[in-house]
Amino acid sequence: MNGYSVFCVSDHTGVTVESVAKSVLAQFPHLEFSLITLPFVDSAEKVREAAARILDTPRPLVFSSLTDPQLRAILGEAGIQPFDIFDLVAPAVGAALGQTATPSGGRTHGMAPDYEARMDAVNFALNLDDGLNPERLGQADLILVGVSRVGKTPTALYLALQYGLRVANYPLTPDDLEQDDLPACLQAHLSRLRGLTLAAERLAAIRQARYPDSRYASLEQCRMELGAAETFFKRHALPVVDTTRMSVEEIAARLRQS
Amino acid sequence: MNGYSVFCVSDHTGVTVESVAKSVLAQFPHLEFSLITLPFVDSAEKVREAAARILDTPRPLVFSSLTDPQLRAILGEAGIQPFDIFDLVAPAVGAALGQTATPSGGRTHGMAPDYEARMDAVNFALNLDDGLNPERLGQADLILVGVSRVGKTPTALYLALQYGLRVANYPLTPDDLEQDDLPACLQAHLSRLRGLTLAAERLAAIRQARYPDSRYASLEQCRMELGAAETFFKRHALPVVDTTRMSVEEIAARLRQS
Repeated sequence: MNGYSVFCVSDHTGVTVESVAKSVLAQFPHLEFSLITLPFVDSAEKVREAAARILDTPRPLVFSSLTDPQLRAILGEAGIQPFDIFDLVAPAVGAALGQTATPSGGRTHGMAPDYEARMDAVNFALNLDDGLNPERLGQADLILVGVSRVGKTPTALYLALQYGLRVANYPLTPDDLEQDDLPACLQAHLSRLRGLTLAAERLAAIRQARYPDSRYASLEQCRMELGAAETFFKRHALPVVDTTRMSVEEIAARLRQS
Repeated sequence: MNGYSVFCVSDHTGVTVESVAKSVLAQFPHLEFSLITLPFVDSAEKVREAAARILDTPRPLVFSSLTDPQLRAILGEAGIQPFDIFDLVAPAVGAALGQTATPSGGRTHGMAPDYEARMDAVNFALNLDDGLNPERLGQADLILVGVSRVGKTPTALYLALQYGLRVANYPLTPDDLEQDDLPACLQAHLSRLRGLTLAAERLAAIRQARYPDSRYASLEQCRMELGAAETFFKRHALPVVDTTRMSVEEIAARLRQS
């Protein structure tokens, strides 16, 4: 057993420190580790509990984003030397700015200013999911189009939750794909359309998991649908993202760029 | 004009470097800045384009998470000295491990291993949204309960997208709240129930935005519903999260802990 237990200690959600820990540890490809996030460690008592848990674990590695110097001191007193995001990054930034960091000074706790926008965007994505309420497509920031099970809904929801974008999604059904061109309700908003596509083998596997041995899940049907959709995308020179080997984060970041 | 333009340069989505930049800059509360993320800067040409854009901007601050040493060198040759997440954090980790970081070595590009689980979780959250398909509640990791517009759906979707948890949500309607106890379908899964609540004033404002001057949006009605829901939560000692001043990330992190 040569694995490490990697603790991510945060006085907040731990999302940032967890994300840094994962990125940095990916640069040590031979390392085996399990990740344990300790969020909301925001009092002396909770830091002591965290420290006890860490000290009780063989081979711990500790990443921390605690902002309060007093809380950080408690870890130090317990003999724990974390990789501290702020210690490691903030001094370089302060030097460049000619200012000293104010730990916990401007911490953005509480509701983000764009919270409302993001919640509205989630409702929008749900109301315009899967071709619902096409008369509202004009209100969308982006409209994702593609065949069934290509990843439209999760992508629309991620863009809403992460970036507050109002994203509709519209499925191209076999009926749509037999027509000469995209449905009229989509052609009215060409500049906001984004195509999603996928390798046919992958789409078939995804559909297969839901409807085994159906025509819908056959490789032939998937190829036909994807080919017809791509013909429409090309005709209108739509930006297209191939989601085959991408995470939802990557798909979303590429769509924001396009 | 004393604001800075903060560039986050990444060869991937930029989510990690953006999140570090925001956290660190929050420690300089007097600083005004606008954030520009440059994702997928993954070729020499793209780095040169990014460098040109940065050099063309007054008062730039640059955070980077480029992993390829050759790409990083191009920034340096252009006279740009970024705050580099890996440069600043990886050496400390390497020293502790007695190993040297392999830049870009173990980069976890492409589909995350848990991609399928997260997509399944999103579909689950949609299928069990707002009390749908209660016969499947037994398959949920968590079941969020609360009155209308308390934040159940976005929270369930966030837990699915971020953590791959299968989260159902069930609305307590005025009819439910007039009964003696929680609906029977919920009582069958008490250990998985989590209550969401909210300040009555805040709930009234949220409902007011959708149905102005309705009884549904009145402060009195909101108080009555929240009070009745909390009585149920207390009777069964359910973990409860008050979402009044929380972001969806915070709510999700607290629910994971509870």
